[in-house]
Amino acid sequence: MKLSEIAAALDAQVEGDASIEIRRAAHPSEAEGPEDLALAMDKDLLALLPGCKAVAAVVSEGAELPEGIRGAIRGIIVVKRPRYAMAGLLDLFERPVHAEPGVHPQAFVDPTARVGANVSIAPFAYVGPQAVIGDNAIILPHVTVGAGAVIGEGCLLHPGARIGERVVMGARCIIHPNAAVGNDGFSFVTPEPGSVESAKATGRVVGTNVLIRRVNSIGTVVLGDDVEIGAGATIDRGTVTATRIGSGTKIDNLVQIGHNVQVGTNCMLCGHVGIAGSTVIGDRVVLAGKVGVADHVKIGSDAVVAANSGVGMDIPPKSVWMGYPAVPRARAFEQYKGLARLKRLFADVADLKSRVRALDGKGTISGGAPPESTE
Amino acid sequence: MKLSEIAAALDAQVEGDASIEIRRAAHPSEAEGPEDLALAMDKDLLALLPGCKAVAAVVSEGAELPEGIRGAIRGIIVVKRPRYAMAGLLDLFERPVHAEPGVHPQAFVDPTARVGANVSIAPFAYVGPQAVIGDNAIILPHVTVGAGAVIGEGCLLHPGARIGERVVMGARCIIHPNAAVGNDGFSFVTPEPGSVESAKATGRVVGTNVLIRRVNSIGTVVLGDDVEIGAGATIDRGTVTATRIGSGTKIDNLVQIGHNVQVGTNCMLCGHVGIAGSTVIGDRVVLAGKVGVADHVKIGSDAVVAANSGVGMDIPPKSVWMGYPAVPRARAFEQYKGLARLKRLFADVADLKSRVRALDGKGTISGGAPPESTE
Amino acid sequence: MKLSEIAAALDAQVEGDASIEIRRAAHPSEAEGPEDLALAMDKDLLALLPGCKAVAAVVSEGAELPEGIRGAIRGIIVVKRPRYAMAGLLDLFERPVHAEPGVHPQAFVDPTARVGANVSIAPFAYVGPQAVIGDNAIILPHVTVGAGAVIGEGCLLHPGARIGERVVMGARCIIHPNAAVGNDGFSFVTPEPGSVESAKATGRVVGTNVLIRRVNSIGTVVLGDDVEIGAGATIDRGTVTATRIGSGTKIDNLVQIGHNVQVGTNCMLCGHVGIAGSTVIGDRVVLAGKVGVADHVKIGSDAVVAANSGVGMDIPPKSVWMGYPAVPRARAFEQYKGLARLKRLFADVADLKSRVRALDGKGTISGGAPPESTE
Repeated sequence: MKLSEIAAALDAQVEGDASIEIRRAAHPSEAEGPEDLALAMDKDLLALLPGCKAVAAVVSEGAELPEGIRGAIRGIIVVKRPRYAMAGLLDLFERPVHAEPGVHPQAFVDPTARVGANVSIAPFAYVGPQAVIGDNAIILPHVTVGAGAVIGEGCLLHPGARIGERVVMGARCIIHPNAAVGNDGFSFVTPEPGSVESAKATGRVVGTNVLIRRVNSIGTVVLGDDVEIGAGATIDRGTVTATRIGSGTKIDNLVQIGHNVQVGTNCMLCGHVGIAGSTVIGDRVVLAGKVGVADHVKIGSDAVVAANSGVGMDIPPKSVWMGYPAVPRARAFEQYKGLARLKRLFADVADLKSRVRALDGKGTISGGAPPESTE
Repeated sequence: MKLSEIAAALDAQVEGDASIEIRRAAHPSEAEGPEDLALAMDKDLLALLPGCKAVAAVVSEGAELPEGIRGAIRGIIVVKRPRYAMAGLLDLFERPVHAEPGVHPQAFVDPTARVGANVSIAPFAYVGPQAVIGDNAIILPHVTVGAGAVIGEGCLLHPGARIGERVVMGARCIIHPNAAVGNDGFSFVTPEPGSVESAKATGRVVGTNVLIRRVNSIGTVVLGDDVEIGAGATIDRGTVTATRIGSGTKIDNLVQIGHNVQVGTNCMLCGHVGIAGSTVIGDRVVLAGKVGVADHVKIGSDAVVAANSGVGMDIPPKSVWMGYPAVPRARAFEQYKGLARLKRLFADVADLKSRVRALDGKGTISGGAPPESTE
Repeated sequence: MKLSEIAAALDAQVEGDASIEIRRAAHPSEAEGPEDLALAMDKDLLALLPGCKAVAAVVSEGAELPEGIRGAIRGIIVVKRPRYAMAGLLDLFERPVHAEPGVHPQAFVDPTARVGANVSIAPFAYVGPQAVIGDNAIILPHVTVGAGAVIGEGCLLHPGARIGERVVMGARCIIHPNAAVGNDGFSFVTPEPGSVESAKATGRVVGTNVLIRRVNSIGTVVLGDDVEIGAGATIDRGTVTATRIGSGTKIDNLVQIGHNVQVGTNCMLCGHVGIAGSTVIGDRVVLAGKVGVADHVKIGSDAVVAANSGVGMDIPPKSVWMGYPAVPRARAFEQYKGLARLKRLFADVADLKSRVRALDGKGTISGGAPPESTE
């Protein structure tokens, strides 16, 4: 590919020699020769250009190139929004996963399954009865597709992905290694109100869970188009109806989505996020890493929740929340600042107490001495 | 099944036509015709009954039916404890997982393994040497049963479940997809006291972990009867003896149980719970989502710990704890309320300081100004 | 093995009969006869020695033996650092995983893969094209080794481990069940600045993520020697270059490591730790259970972070941090103590307000009443 063609694909300009032939994109310190394109779209990477073995580079608009570099780097693509340009570059230089056409003889495909055109089904993949595999789908080794599941056109199922029975996914979904979609929900009930019910209602444990009865799930999971489910993530099926993940939503590794949860479109749920049963998440919501959301909560569209927050109540649309328990961001900051100044506050109050005692001659009601450091 | 038979199984009454034939339970908005039983045991679901294609429904005692609905919905089952009735209904309408009788020719069963009567072992399942598979057990595709493991009668092992060597499980356990039971513990030691030991003892890092030596685990994991292990959950085996999970205990997805942990009977450990090594959990304990428990801690029977809490010390029986670090619930609420009022407290103290200064003419010792909002 | 030989391996002394023949190490309550060596290196275990069926035991230096025990326990090994001695003992009595020599006929090994000497490749293991398997490596059932991956000498890959394409691992790495190394990174970009960018910059949601574009990862993961990756853990590959885990680093179950992360040597990352993209962790760092680390953060060598902490900023070397957001340990303790005393502080301030009002006759500016308990 010529440098000029790459620039055109990125809607960017070339400075210098646009005719350089490129075969690979590389980190500046890993470029091996003149066919590599050095990606140097931030300051740290720019600093690596001197000595780099590439003769072409991509830089951000306004970047200050290291002195004297223009001799060695003969062609430069200048981009405006580097992260977005990166997506374009990595589309051009993508290294697609190895997949052989057709159904491998060491795969198991139930004779009642329906397999589309141009699929790849690898050794040790299992496709259950009545399952449907869409055209152009890629099913890698050790994938399980349960009975009656429907895999959309162009889906990519990585090794060890478990697709439960009756799960339906749209087109172009990507299921990463060892993700499990369509598991039985974690739903149990005690004959009489149990310890959690009394703890929530009264703050005390009254009932005890001497008998726990399973609530079977007869629902399933429905994924829209272009959904991604991260490695090791788990999505439970609905009790009666479906747990739903809207089109374009991206779910990171080790995320847990409980039964009956409804997630809208174009959401981003980062690593270790956990969402308890029956919660409803709007569209374009971002939950940062390790956010936990209680059951039966509603999070409005375009809300952003900061990492490690614990959400126990509804969150309005377009708001930014954080903390444990999560509160609006401004309030959380106020609390953190207050906490950081607590030591001084205790000292102030101790000072006030002795001065007021000197003024009115009365004793104090308690001993709020400043907390000492433990070290 | 007649409506009257369903009601009898739930120990409930029918209002209206008890002879309606039912074939399926359904969400009111997904009912497709007169053979569907609409599950409408809460307010939101009741509201969906007008226009619903079912002619029979289940509702809660005391529910206010939408007006004019009794014409369309000709038979109504009225239940007392809806969640418990749901368990009964979903037993009646369960959709059991697909499993073919016998050992599939594409499974691997070591010749020294002992396989009980009436089992199902699916394609690509692996059963190691000396393993024992109980009667009526179902082993789905891609399951690994390690050497010497004992799978109890009627157990159900979902795709990708990993059962480590020598693991023993009782009857009717359910291991969900990609759960790993019996992994080597995370146990390492440095020749001299390392950084964690000095951090715990002194708050400072003195030793450094220049050499890390592995502590092998020669123990295993023992599960009681009716235990469930969620999708992607991990349970490490004991160092010398066994990590134990008591009968009836239910473990949700992505839970991590460290080596040597002892969990009692009928506990519920929700999604992303993590329990560090050698901790002892009593009976009927509930740990809500994302609770972390330190090593060598004891949690008393019937205790309930709220979501996202971090437990670093022993918890007495029948108590409700929450927070990070976790404290009794009443104290945690007090702290959250205090935090929420901190801004006003700072303002009060600032006011007091200026007034006391006016009274005694002395300066202040520090500058505890109220924390401003950052936005 | 004679007791004297075991003592020699541990660099310890025997008291009593050093000629006892030992075949197994056991918990005192599980010892079955005179060939078992009772491990009694702490107080609780010592108390189990009376009645124990073993005739030899290991105890810690200075331990007080139960009275009259020396008759039954005829030989005693006395060790100095019990945890370290345990590592030595469990090396002697290790129960290595079952693995048969050679490539099993039910394994799949691509004809272009290069397989070293003395390997074990189990049924249903998959080795992709151009992959390299080092000498003495053990690949257990259901493992996937992606195209072009390099497995070092003596590595042990447990059932269900997923090794992504081009992943390179050094010698003697252990990958536990269902771990996934080399997954595609969680990296997306919006054409215009999205909700997270505006939330971080302004605290408000301005942009909305109406279009999400995938950023492909063309990098990989490189593991050093003696690295362990826990059950169900996930490690994403780098965007352009490699995510790296240094030699000797031990990663526990269900840990998530984002794309481009660099982890140094001899680190210990405990269960449920999550590290967001591009963060750099020094050498010998210890992150306790459930620690979350933001993206693009630097954690200095020998730092220790306490369980459940959320790290949002750089941490200097050799420091101990904790909390959410994480701060130096002494400051965190100060904050917890302050929180615990908040109720008294509110009471003090209320008292001061009424007394100052009595002195100056003026009203108060706000109502900072002490927070009542909710129960």
